[in-house]
Amino acid sequence: MQLQTGNLFGFEAKHGSEERIDMLVTGQRLNMERIVSMGHVSFEGFWYDDSRAEWVVLLTGAAVLEFEEDSTRHDMHPGDYVLIEPHCRHRVAWTHADEQTVWLAIYYER
Amino acid sequence: MQLQTGNLFGFEAKHGSEERIDMLVTGQRLNMERIVSMGHVSFEGFWYDDSRAEWVVLLTGAAVLEFEEDSTRHDMHPGDYVLIEPHCRHRVAWTHADEQTVWLAIYYER
Repeated sequence: MQLQTGNLFGFEAKHGSEERIDMLVTGQRLNMERIVSMGHVSFEGFWYDDSRAEWVVLLTGAAVLEFEEDSTRHDMHPGDYVLIEPHCRHRVAWTHADEQTVWLAIYYER
Repeated sequence: MQLQTGNLFGFEAKHGSEERIDMLVTGQRLNMERIVSMGHVSFEGFWYDDSRAEWVVLLTGAAVLEFEEDSTRHDMHPGDYVLIEPHCRHRVAWTHADEQTVWLAIYYER
């Protein structure tokens, strides 16, 4: 029997370059990504603005999400998740510089 | 700004009773659950048989999944995920008796 398997924490470490993004599931109305950040942040003034809902959990590391509305900043630690509504503009304001921040992000149509 | 947030590891411990299942996301074509097992297994002879695809990751603890096809047994440790195709009959053969096994399960239509 052939199973599609993997490990969220099984990847080569990369430092200083781009964020690592791996697509885990691609469906018609669902995408799931594992993202690994290490000091990466969104460009100043850049906002994610997606027509899909996004559910995202931080599994290791630490980060701060920023939302345009009310300039809300939201600290994230391991296990923390947040549901981001469609077109809720947000960015990654900070990720830990020395620890790998592993995110699992699920984008889906309502 | 009101965010829908939570922590996957933030829950009251329960021992000996039912598995704990919390619905995290309910969409038209997507459900996401956090499941906490502690020694729980599927009943002997019981097989999950879902028309939806299931992507499931084990975040803490340890477990063994069993698949009807070829009587495949699949060990799971933290970070391990598996994609279970629709109608792929499976059961939970074992979960750690003394550690909480936290699963994140996503059921979706293709």
